[in-house]
Amino acid sequence: MSTPFLFPQWMKAQSERTESALDRLLDPNKLPPIRLHQAMRYAAQGGGKRIRPLLLYATGELAECELSRDALDAAAVAIECIHAYSLVHDDLPSMDNDDLRRGRPTVHKAFDEATALLVGDALQSKAFEILAAIECDPLVRLDLIHSLAVASGSRGMAGGQAIDLESVGKTIELQDLQQMHAMKTGALLSCAVRMGGVIAHLNAAQLEQLTIYSQALGLAFQVVDDILDATADSQTLGKTAGKDAAQDKPTYVTLMGLDYAQQKALELEKIATASLECFGSKAQALRELALLVVNRGK
Amino acid sequence: MSTPFLFPQWMKAQSERTESALDRLLDPNKLPPIRLHQAMRYAAQGGGKRIRPLLLYATGELAECELSRDALDAAAVAIECIHAYSLVHDDLPSMDNDDLRRGRPTVHKAFDEATALLVGDALQSKAFEILAAIECDPLVRLDLIHSLAVASGSRGMAGGQAIDLESVGKTIELQDLQQMHAMKTGALLSCAVRMGGVIAHLNAAQLEQLTIYSQALGLAFQVVDDILDATADSQTLGKTAGKDAAQDKPTYVTLMGLDYAQQKALELEKIATASLECFGSKAQALRELALLVVNRGK
Repeated sequence: MSTPFLFPQWMKAQSERTESALDRLLDPNKLPPIRLHQAMRYAAQGGGKRIRPLLLYATGELAECELSRDALDAAAVAIECIHAYSLVHDDLPSMDNDDLRRGRPTVHKAFDEATALLVGDALQSKAFEILAAIECDPLVRLDLIHSLAVASGSRGMAGGQAIDLESVGKTIELQDLQQMHAMKTGALLSCAVRMGGVIAHLNAAQLEQLTIYSQALGLAFQVVDDILDATADSQTLGKTAGKDAAQDKPTYVTLMGLDYAQQKALELEKIATASLECFGSKAQALRELALLVVNRGK
Repeated sequence: MSTPFLFPQWMKAQSERTESALDRLLDPNKLPPIRLHQAMRYAAQGGGKRIRPLLLYATGELAECELSRDALDAAAVAIECIHAYSLVHDDLPSMDNDDLRRGRPTVHKAFDEATALLVGDALQSKAFEILAAIECDPLVRLDLIHSLAVASGSRGMAGGQAIDLESVGKTIELQDLQQMHAMKTGALLSCAVRMGGVIAHLNAAQLEQLTIYSQALGLAFQVVDDILDATADSQTLGKTAGKDAAQDKPTYVTLMGLDYAQQKALELEKIATASLECFGSKAQALRELALLVVNRGK
């Protein structure tokens, strides 16, 4: 008899697992250069929703055979290193110039700008170092490394950032906005799902279904972000509300209106859920995560 | 009958090979995001001595069997992507605040600061993407990726930078100065040699000899840099002379005097050359490169 799947317990366990893996795989504070290692830990261990590791672990649940927990943990840490580095660099004065992140001073405020630059750079190297050192099939490791490099590079996250910078104050079509978000945030979310699927040794058809899921989820994530930016207050949001509008950044809400955006989020959740049918009850965590993304702030 | 080894011709051929590989493996200018890809090419194709690719190709000459030219080219481009990204980030206002690099405006001057930040980030991802996609033994690829990640991360290049930042205006011991340079510049030079050796399928004993070579070479490189900074004029140097002293940065010359530094450079060249004995005439290019490093500016 199988035990029933309890999502809150699952979430809690995976979040703890992520924090523990980060603690284990990041260089220790006491290892020189001490200040840099302290700042790297400060950046990566500052909390956050850990949505990428959760997606990765949830995809790992689809495995039909025994799968390597170490490989999942390493991939979770690697993707959080990339995510954390992108936040550290985003917060710099030449980018978003943010003083606070997750309720604490940003890295360049807690340390200094030059250190923040190096923290981001070194966290990115760390991600690939960790993936290369996993004890599993070499071809799986290479797939993880290639996927993460593409998802974070000029045709993924960094490229989306570049397009975002250029679009401030400009008229942008809905299609271009979607493309920008697909690169800026979608690529890394999709990569988390793909990494989980590759470690779980899923076949090509299964990975394709997961691509539909993660693309819908990535877009939903951004649409809901825009809705919250337009409707929630700063306290609920945990960051400055109305910031996009104030910075004259195009959003789903400013381009298409609030009703359209809310409708779109629900539609995307349906697409994401439908793509998981072939996995049956094993996909329960992925289904719950899609709901969680769409219902954020409600 | 073997043809005699002619170093100038060899240098010219490998330099051309590096430029051609960079042109082939970097994303094209016309691929969106266009401005980011243009800036990445601007950063990586701006010339320079290409000492890291030359070391890599020279080590490739030690191979006792047929070796993959594509693998060497990919590794050469990957290491230049890392080197180029480090220069772009170094030149930023929060670091060295340089307006010129290789006689042209630095990336943040030719484009803007936010773009320069993203160029560095995306060049780093590109390096690992290229290595993961080489068509060769998966374990060779993983060794290349792991070596490059460690050499460029917090225990290598980025860590050396962090120590350098902290040491400005402070009293520093010779040993700490050496450690800092071993990380900041030595790690990537050694990595170039190691990557060439791994692609050439050298054995562990041979790789160990090459480590002696590359560590001596890396240190010699820095000692000669310090000598030139203290003695050459800006025109010969191609950058501002006397900058280290002006910035109150400790150097071999300020710590130990010019005579000691000159003696040290010659000693290191001897160590480097002696470590190559076991390779016989195949190591001619590596020998010539060591001489080139020590005789720079003469």
